[in-house]
Amino acid sequence: MATLYGVGVGPGDPLLITLKACQLIANTQVVSYLANDKGESQAAFIAREAFAQVSHKQLHLPIPMPMSTDRTLANKAYDQGAQEIAEQLKSGEDVVFLCEGDPLFFGSFSYLLERLQGLYQIQVVPGVSSVHAAAAALQLPLTLQRESFAVISGRHSDQQIRRALVEHDSLVIMKAGLARERILALLAETGRSQQANYLEYISRDNQLINTDVSSLTLEAGPYFSLFVVTKKRQQVSQSA
Amino acid sequence: MATLYGVGVGPGDPLLITLKACQLIANTQVVSYLANDKGESQAAFIAREAFAQVSHKQLHLPIPMPMSTDRTLANKAYDQGAQEIAEQLKSGEDVVFLCEGDPLFFGSFSYLLERLQGLYQIQVVPGVSSVHAAAAALQLPLTLQRESFAVISGRHSDQQIRRALVEHDSLVIMKAGLARERILALLAETGRSQQANYLEYISRDNQLINTDVSSLTLEAGPYFSLFVVTKKRQQVSQSA
Repeated sequence: MATLYGVGVGPGDPLLITLKACQLIANTQVVSYLANDKGESQAAFIAREAFAQVSHKQLHLPIPMPMSTDRTLANKAYDQGAQEIAEQLKSGEDVVFLCEGDPLFFGSFSYLLERLQGLYQIQVVPGVSSVHAAAAALQLPLTLQRESFAVISGRHSDQQIRRALVEHDSLVIMKAGLARERILALLAETGRSQQANYLEYISRDNQLINTDVSSLTLEAGPYFSLFVVTKKRQQVSQSA
Repeated sequence: MATLYGVGVGPGDPLLITLKACQLIANTQVVSYLANDKGESQAAFIAREAFAQVSHKQLHLPIPMPMSTDRTLANKAYDQGAQEIAEQLKSGEDVVFLCEGDPLFFGSFSYLLERLQGLYQIQVVPGVSSVHAAAAALQLPLTLQRESFAVISGRHSDQQIRRALVEHDSLVIMKAGLARERILALLAETGRSQQANYLEYISRDNQLINTDVSSLTLEAGPYFSLFVVTKKRQQVSQSA
């Protein structure tokens, strides 16, 4: 029985892919991923180190995903993609589906999983998420000891973002692009602007890190942008 | 100037290490990690695929870490470890410090970082954390759309755990070993027992998954154990 592999390729740096993801890409005939209307795929681009090691012929199944906030269009695209993947699985071919970051963390694979789970053999290969890549880029611990930590999205309501900012020591706000102005206002309102950092395209060539969010303009940022907020921590006595 | 690399080796499966971690291990003379009183290191064990590719002689700097909840002992161990690492850096040798999971997510590297940050050149290489490995093992999306997600620890107070269970759609409770009885009681109290899963040693050979936490005994579990709680999600119409 063929297997569908949901594989995380990591946050953007092609070297932040796992050995397991590389091996699966190298040993599987059919590879699928979301693509934009030009056929470009972030996930496939991130996996370029792995693809460079593939010597055999591979079938690529891009799933065209319209850039839209209309979930009806997205659901149709996932329906269609799930059907194409299912046809490969029925014919006995394993399929590797590539996702940016981790497959089950705000990940596109979740939507294929809910369509195919229980019908086919599935395995999920976790990846390095942008949350961890952000902390690494900032050299900032996300959580120490008893600190609490939450992840929310720019798509949450003002009230939800405000409450998370008030209640949690550390907070990552994903998908901050369209919500930048709202998030900056909420950071100011809750007194956390100075504890906030803003990042775009983490670990990629065009990575941007801003540790003084008061200097950010109010215009929308890209989809791959996030805020990291941590409380100020007591410095330990330096022993070195 | 020599560099200290804080490197995540992933959750346990030796293939869930990144290419970047493997390259650093392969190209660096000095490798450090926490070790128990027998000299054993989980992080070094997880990195065994990477070490298998090292042909040159490497200096290993284990940092003995006493098994104790007394932070004074831990701080002394980190002081001593930071000093030994600093000596290598001063002599011009790069040092790779290996961490289970991700270096800055409840990770031991945070404590070396706060001792050495600003004094030496440092780079952090993120890893796959047990949060993502747990979701992969369960084949359960951590977050969809507007769901909120928090990570807390069994070391948090009852009140903190209770509040997180009430307020968040999805929740991971790390370091659940000693807190198992309390967590089970709080899951029952907040009506979330049936939405909870329990995992030990995720992605390792001795991985245990329990999707019916009512069957768990009240005795303490290992350090590497966690609960994943997600709300019941609406099934989409299956298109396959």
